[in-house]
Amino acid sequence: MLRAAIVGATGYTGVELLRILLCHSSVRVSTLTSRKHEGQPIDRVFPALRARTDLVCESLDFDRIAEKSDFIFTAVPHKTAMEVVPEFHRRGKRVVDLSADFRFRDPRLYALWYQPHACEALLEEAVYGLPEIHREAIKNAQIVGNPGCYPTGAILAMAPLLKKKLVDLSQIVIDAKSGTSGAGSDPALATLFCEVNEGLKAYKILEHRHSPEIEQELTQLASEPVRVVFVPHLIPMDRGILTTIYAKLNRTWDTESLLAMYSDFYEGEYFIRLCPQGEYPNVSDVRGSNFCDIGLKVAEDGQKLVIVCVIDNLVKGASGQAVQNMNLMCGFAENSALEGLALFP
Amino acid sequence: MLRAAIVGATGYTGVELLRILLCHSSVRVSTLTSRKHEGQPIDRVFPALRARTDLVCESLDFDRIAEKSDFIFTAVPHKTAMEVVPEFHRRGKRVVDLSADFRFRDPRLYALWYQPHACEALLEEAVYGLPEIHREAIKNAQIVGNPGCYPTGAILAMAPLLKKKLVDLSQIVIDAKSGTSGAGSDPALATLFCEVNEGLKAYKILEHRHSPEIEQELTQLASEPVRVVFVPHLIPMDRGILTTIYAKLNRTWDTESLLAMYSDFYEGEYFIRLCPQGEYPNVSDVRGSNFCDIGLKVAEDGQKLVIVCVIDNLVKGASGQAVQNMNLMCGFAENSALEGLALFP
Amino acid sequence: MLRAAIVGATGYTGVELLRILLCHSSVRVSTLTSRKHEGQPIDRVFPALRARTDLVCESLDFDRIAEKSDFIFTAVPHKTAMEVVPEFHRRGKRVVDLSADFRFRDPRLYALWYQPHACEALLEEAVYGLPEIHREAIKNAQIVGNPGCYPTGAILAMAPLLKKKLVDLSQIVIDAKSGTSGAGSDPALATLFCEVNEGLKAYKILEHRHSPEIEQELTQLASEPVRVVFVPHLIPMDRGILTTIYAKLNRTWDTESLLAMYSDFYEGEYFIRLCPQGEYPNVSDVRGSNFCDIGLKVAEDGQKLVIVCVIDNLVKGASGQAVQNMNLMCGFAENSALEGLALFP
Amino acid sequence: MLRAAIVGATGYTGVELLRILLCHSSVRVSTLTSRKHEGQPIDRVFPALRARTDLVCESLDFDRIAEKSDFIFTAVPHKTAMEVVPEFHRRGKRVVDLSADFRFRDPRLYALWYQPHACEALLEEAVYGLPEIHREAIKNAQIVGNPGCYPTGAILAMAPLLKKKLVDLSQIVIDAKSGTSGAGSDPALATLFCEVNEGLKAYKILEHRHSPEIEQELTQLASEPVRVVFVPHLIPMDRGILTTIYAKLNRTWDTESLLAMYSDFYEGEYFIRLCPQGEYPNVSDVRGSNFCDIGLKVAEDGQKLVIVCVIDNLVKGASGQAVQNMNLMCGFAENSALEGLALFP
Repeated sequence: MLRAAIVGATGYTGVELLRILLCHSSVRVSTLTSRKHEGQPIDRVFPALRARTDLVCESLDFDRIAEKSDFIFTAVPHKTAMEVVPEFHRRGKRVVDLSADFRFRDPRLYALWYQPHACEALLEEAVYGLPEIHREAIKNAQIVGNPGCYPTGAILAMAPLLKKKLVDLSQIVIDAKSGTSGAGSDPALATLFCEVNEGLKAYKILEHRHSPEIEQELTQLASEPVRVVFVPHLIPMDRGILTTIYAKLNRTWDTESLLAMYSDFYEGEYFIRLCPQGEYPNVSDVRGSNFCDIGLKVAEDGQKLVIVCVIDNLVKGASGQAVQNMNLMCGFAENSALEGLALFP
Repeated sequence: MLRAAIVGATGYTGVELLRILLCHSSVRVSTLTSRKHEGQPIDRVFPALRARTDLVCESLDFDRIAEKSDFIFTAVPHKTAMEVVPEFHRRGKRVVDLSADFRFRDPRLYALWYQPHACEALLEEAVYGLPEIHREAIKNAQIVGNPGCYPTGAILAMAPLLKKKLVDLSQIVIDAKSGTSGAGSDPALATLFCEVNEGLKAYKILEHRHSPEIEQELTQLASEPVRVVFVPHLIPMDRGILTTIYAKLNRTWDTESLLAMYSDFYEGEYFIRLCPQGEYPNVSDVRGSNFCDIGLKVAEDGQKLVIVCVIDNLVKGASGQAVQNMNLMCGFAENSALEGLALFP
Repeated sequence: MLRAAIVGATGYTGVELLRILLCHSSVRVSTLTSRKHEGQPIDRVFPALRARTDLVCESLDFDRIAEKSDFIFTAVPHKTAMEVVPEFHRRGKRVVDLSADFRFRDPRLYALWYQPHACEALLEEAVYGLPEIHREAIKNAQIVGNPGCYPTGAILAMAPLLKKKLVDLSQIVIDAKSGTSGAGSDPALATLFCEVNEGLKAYKILEHRHSPEIEQELTQLASEPVRVVFVPHLIPMDRGILTTIYAKLNRTWDTESLLAMYSDFYEGEYFIRLCPQGEYPNVSDVRGSNFCDIGLKVAEDGQKLVIVCVIDNLVKGASGQAVQNMNLMCGFAENSALEGLALFP
Repeated sequence: MLRAAIVGATGYTGVELLRILLCHSSVRVSTLTSRKHEGQPIDRVFPALRARTDLVCESLDFDRIAEKSDFIFTAVPHKTAMEVVPEFHRRGKRVVDLSADFRFRDPRLYALWYQPHACEALLEEAVYGLPEIHREAIKNAQIVGNPGCYPTGAILAMAPLLKKKLVDLSQIVIDAKSGTSGAGSDPALATLFCEVNEGLKAYKILEHRHSPEIEQELTQLASEPVRVVFVPHLIPMDRGILTTIYAKLNRTWDTESLLAMYSDFYEGEYFIRLCPQGEYPNVSDVRGSNFCDIGLKVAEDGQKLVIVCVIDNLVKGASGQAVQNMNLMCGFAENSALEGLALFP
């Protein structure tokens, strides 16, 4: 049994890690940490865990955690993560970090959107944890920077196009819509029920921190610079991201051929599911699951293209993908503990 | 007192007309018709009206309605509308029709997306009922084709740009998100609570019937052919449309100047409200009201442009705008019975 | 024009007062105060008010407010209210207070559930602002303690029974269900969207502060001590309270006769609407309106009784009722600015 | 591998059975039937199953299904069930029926609330499938009548009290609140999104068909006739039932002792979880899981009692419990495929 620690266990991604790992047949959760809830049984913090675990939230003691754990998930805010991860790295532990701190290859880009990076050397070593794109590197990584929720959907939806250089790089529009759990569990006016429910808004228009992350990966896939127009929206639902992408194909295609090309590209990928022609995914198709479902349509002109992609932001967009990465790093079946189907309705 | 009839009173737009007209100081609702609920008091169909009206749903008897009414709202499905409206027109009544049947100037375009038109002559005479664009024509119209909900938001958000020829006409993307009341009250699997709630999907991608309606008006504003990429989405909320528009400016602008241009264009328009720079509208800002709120942002390159526009699909997107048209046609203050502020939260 | 001030304008009841008063034909809102938003235009705090008012949030300066205002609404938390209200009272202003501070006749009861009362003398003078029960006293009151949201529904549903001594006073169960706006707009984990949405819980079981308020009024109606079992629940919706009351009749009745008795009791009451036999109210029937709709059913045994009552917690349960009280106090029509019908859907 | 058939696979309980059984390590789903979707791959009906199964909906051919299956779940409407179940019984198959047709011991009671029963002999043989109460009988049953959703919560919450004769049998009030999936997936006005969302209502007051089912079981537990006051409510959420029960204890207790008694009564029950004193369950604690969480509080008088119980209506209230019954009947671990924790948020 792999002994896993969750550092920062009482946010929404932390408890989602627990939900998944408590059913993982090769993993035992050995330690949870939480500054806010230190000393509290986790099932008092999250009654959904009632009677299913007697884990108690601990303080962040690197030595003790390292001793009790073989593998570390860090689910703390960015900036905190780059203080915490090196401590475990130094102690020889492999880490999947769910913050933004180990997602960027270029420390200057990170610095531009976040703050100066505290351990640039590790940044170089870290692998961007999108298994469908970087599987081999992940297997051997010591540190995996688990992708952001919006980037996961956007990159998986676009990867075949960019890899094969099929679209005009100057005309990519990404209109993303996210459930509210993406905003985390810190109390704030903007995420109160009455502010979100029956509401709908765009936010951080053209200035969301996931833009550069998307561009980094699309640029690498395309082997030339890609800039995107990215606008996120807040949707009155708990979970799910639906990403609608607008692009222009370099030559004419029809929907069927393009779907076939996607199908080839993602052949054998357990978590990528393509919708048949004429069907498009609904976030409810993946609610609570690690799947990423993609549908697309080419306009009659053969060039205008609309892609629709859905994930559960807390699963494939965060904790499920983190477990997928751990599975790869530890030689478990890639879908261990991730075979669950969507909860519908 | 103007005596107004509502033909098709028991759909969501019908009851919304009632909600508004029952508080209109110059109008008395004289007649309601409903095939499904003939003979039933309307407040048994819509208990929200309990004790506030004793109107009873009647059958569709043109002579009797014409005798009892000075003005007609038709809130019946398309195809039915083009059978009903001419009857009232023939009897000298002015009509606002909430279906699609009198929105198109070109009967071939209508035929292409709906079915052959039964009274092309009237089509020619009908006025597209978007007051901010066609106010003077509406005042004298005998038949007003009340705009679709998606077109209302999209056209109002784009009108200044097209009128002033500021954008590349080949790169307009309209990503629209609508509350579920837009789908009407006919029972269907797709609009059941459990199908919509916690769900999110795109639908009728590149083939929604509101596309040609949007293009007709944008083409007229631009004085040259405009084609748009239009993708609607279904949102788990009752009311509201948020339209995110992506365009490319012909020359560089900054956000401030573009907002000032919009402000000039819409000067004096009671129902158009512009958001200050850096703010964007939320559908909850207009819930239950006839306002159309618009925010926008120009990217750092000075050319990429994002516009966000919100309306309540049942008010400015349907029944409120129908009353606004009636107010204009009858010489009432344009905002009579439409001054209510949004219900928030 | 009556010049009205709203002290504490930026909570949910404050903005609801504004929504109503901005459409009141005999009232002009002269002043808003907000500690948190001092100096900010109110329409930046609540964009729903965009372009419809240029009021700016002020600090709480009693003299200045008294000079600019004829009438005061205090929508501040309890404890603060009992510091603020006496200041306006001293300056000769009539006040409707939306907190709990002036609802109790017995300062010991208040002290038991809240804290010691700071101005017991005024408590004696204040009138409990439930117009259907205390209309005449309200007309002449200097201070009105506006009822709590749960008590409003519970008392109106029970008043006829208690006044006429029809039920067993030892077996009254009140199971109340409230929308989340009742919890206010202060950021808290428990009212975050993701905590409330798709959730449902009972809270403060048998220890909610509205219990003694309900008991005070029921006791007065019954002319003997009444204790109730009161359990509130939090519902994933913005607005509305549905109160289900279980009681045992002293003698056998049938539903029809009991409804007739209710109908007599509430004859002429504009805001009380009884459901016909076999129908029961839905909170959506009163959403955004000042109505209180009541339905009831007597069991086959003729004694077990179920009453269902709905109000909008922010309107009849708070700000609408406050305006109703002001209307009475100032000699306006009781339903001025309160004639709006429910927003449905 | 047990080969299981689902008859009536395309309702909400059918797809929930699939969600659970597709992850059951000892079961293979061999056949699905659906009148409405015959010939369609199930993953076109429920895209959540995309790429995870190639099962196709079949017609209801008893011989073919009996040949391909060892075990039958019938998830068809009542009345249909009593035509279908005997066919499989005759062919030697064990059945869990999710309709009401095999829940009643007394055919006259069934006839009173539903219609005359078509196979009274089998009714006698069928076992009421509430494992925590009837475990041993279930193990050997040929036909299990899977309990209704409301009865599951109500009975589990009350069983200890009745078994031990602790409450006044004439004063039991059950106020139940259910998510909308309980109403099934047949299109109907009353369950459209816009009718349910932001709405809240009681329905079938004192006349819901689950009343006699609850009373049957409570009567058996108490060994004397029990009648309850039962009022269900429709809540704007997908899943979950919260049952608030009001009762009067025969002698005085305190909360702690009563909780201890419950704890003894349910000792060893995997799916029953008691909340610590002062805590009460939220439906979100059990969303998507087979748990039944119970909290309670005794009033200061030591006699008035409030119990709160939550289940997921589609899991413990339907398909999860059906699998729990199958596990018992087939000698699998009782929680096989039912160990999943709630999806939160």
